Amino acid sequence: MTFQTVDDLETPSVLIDLIKMERNISAMQTRCDELGIQFRPHIKTHKIPAIARRQLDAGAVGIACQKVSEAEVFADAGFDDIQIPYNIVGKSKTRRLAQLARRVKLTVTVDNLPVIEGIAGAAREADATIGVMVELVSLNQRTGTDPEDALELARRISACDNLRFTGLMVYPSDAAIRPSLQKTLRLLADAGIAVETVSGGGSGAILESHLIPELTEMRVGTYVFWDWGSVSHKMTTFDRCAMTVRCSVVSANEAHRVILDGGSKSIHSETVDGCFGYITEYPAARIYKVNEEHGYVDFSACETMPGVGDIVHIIPVHTCVVTNLHNRIFGVRGGTIEEVWDVAARGLVW
Amino acid sequence: MTFQTVDDLETPSVLIDLIKMERNISAMQTRCDELGIQFRPHIKTHKIPAIARRQLDAGAVGIACQKVSEAEVFADAGFDDIQIPYNIVGKSKTRRLAQLARRVKLTVTVDNLPVIEGIAGAAREADATIGVMVELVSLNQRTGTDPEDALELARRISACDNLRFTGLMVYPSDAAIRPSLQKTLRLLADAGIAVETVSGGGSGAILESHLIPELTEMRVGTYVFWDWGSVSHKMTTFDRCAMTVRCSVVSANEAHRVILDGGSKSIHSETVDGCFGYITEYPAARIYKVNEEHGYVDFSACETMPGVGDIVHIIPVHTCVVTNLHNRIFGVRGGTIEEVWDVAARGLVW
Repeated sequence: MTFQTVDDLETPSVLIDLIKMERNISAMQTRCDELGIQFRPHIKTHKIPAIARRQLDAGAVGIACQKVSEAEVFADAGFDDIQIPYNIVGKSKTRRLAQLARRVKLTVTVDNLPVIEGIAGAAREADATIGVMVELVSLNQRTGTDPEDALELARRISACDNLRFTGLMVYPSDAAIRPSLQKTLRLLADAGIAVETVSGGGSGAILESHLIPELTEMRVGTYVFWDWGSVSHKMTTFDRCAMTVRCSVVSANEAHRVILDGGSKSIHSETVDGCFGYITEYPAARIYKVNEEHGYVDFSACETMPGVGDIVHIIPVHTCVVTNLHNRIFGVRGGTIEEVWDVAARGLVW
Repeated sequence: MTFQTVDDLETPSVLIDLIKMERNISAMQTRCDELGIQFRPHIKTHKIPAIARRQLDAGAVGIACQKVSEAEVFADAGFDDIQIPYNIVGKSKTRRLAQLARRVKLTVTVDNLPVIEGIAGAAREADATIGVMVELVSLNQRTGTDPEDALELARRISACDNLRFTGLMVYPSDAAIRPSLQKTLRLLADAGIAVETVSGGGSGAILESHLIPELTEMRVGTYVFWDWGSVSHKMTTFDRCAMTVRCSVVSANEAHRVILDGGSKSIHSETVDGCFGYITEYPAARIYKVNEEHGYVDFSACETMPGVGDIVHIIPVHTCVVTNLHNRIFGVRGGTIEEVWDVAARGLVW
């Protein structure tokens, strides 16, 4: 299939407005440059090496991936500084991690002792060196540990021949994390353990990153496309949202209801205010329900509504999960398709 | 990678208990045989030709797909009776549909006139014949039309040289649909329009299918694996649920909270009673939140809880959407991996 303009595309298709994406890449790099911190894009939002390359060309120091399998794809594509901010668990996975560490500068995070033991064993076996950061718990209450345990983990990492303690990681790095971060840094300093990197993260947290001068780098993903979720959290505005999902109306038998060919398999099932996406042509329309291949839209608050065969463009609630649903997405400039990207690291869960 | 037992698998991995799947396939075919109706499995649940082949070997007459792209994959795999219960819209898609109709016995559904005109034009251009059913609206309030409009659409289809009116479709075909179905059949009979097929659908609706003797076939998908959603709707029981997602504990720093390596990218984000999956080893545990690569589990109602590196198995809320997230799933019998299936029609949205 050849595609020249968006009119040639099947629906549902994911479009990336290249002008907006380029502006987002440039703006985030500028923000980090002004703060004097390194910028490390998280590739989970796009999963496409060619876009990560643009982020590095703009000044990023390396990338973050969430899975070993994602890191393998990006290493194969030539990326040589990869961080995986995740506890890597299991014999096969730690072995693959160690093999990867022989090829690229690799850093992971840990929040517990068994994970350290697992990766230390695999690194020893492979004669590899893996960089390790300790994760501090945040308001998110997900992974991470408290300052005292962080010190113990840092000591343990420093005692392993094939591991290299590099610093601290936190997600998201909202300003509220600073007291705990400062305390941990004091404990490490008192113990004589050097800290190279203090890595913060989160597309929203970047807005508060000037309040945490201890940060040396930021990992951010969503900013490259932004989405309705980001707009609803006041991280950005609609005019910065680079991703839309182009859908067709397939049924319109009711006065105010229309069915689209984009459902949870195309626009995902996360919501803002009970809606599954924001239709750019009809801001007052509500996508109130999705099945896998159907989007249900209520146009009762709109003056007009589309008919069967008409096209609409949806800004999704969460771009990262949408990218993971599509095999291929399209970079568009003024209606012309400039880029056809295979989503190379799509669906990689290992 | 070679896999012999489940212990060789990375996590998160999707396991299919072959004994349960085989029992589900056999039980559904028996149910339809006893009702004297044809059975047409919907492949959206597994998206794997080898499993559809087992369903046909058990007695199914053909398959249902939801997208033209899915139908293309299954036609390439040798399936020759394919129904797409969907309004196919757009020039490129109707062209592909017409090409497919030259290779296999193909039937679609419509609920409006523009869709009929689109597929009729494409069929004429390709010198193909496409079977067309009219969809009746159900309690679902999604696609479909009322009896009077159904008659008009049937007349229009019958008047197109390259379309063949084959009957009526409804989803889901709960008993409540019968009055509308009977009325439409009367209108068609009075107009002298023959009806070959009355196609019902829905894994839950099969329980009520004996109450609608007008049905000539059932399209059912989820039954092949079942899931927690089906159990919660009393369509089946946990011991029939063939799919589990094998996950590892990656963090366990709190008294009652554990983090798994399966999140919305592995077990999806649909819920039952606010939970994202049912952990077979810990029935009282609650997966209360998911991020893409993290599952948050509350074990406060459990007497014991797993530690870092331990394995748990999750019955997902909705199997169809889970299959779509994985590139490969595994057929298991007694801990031994008998089948490694690529999810051939995964992520096909066109």
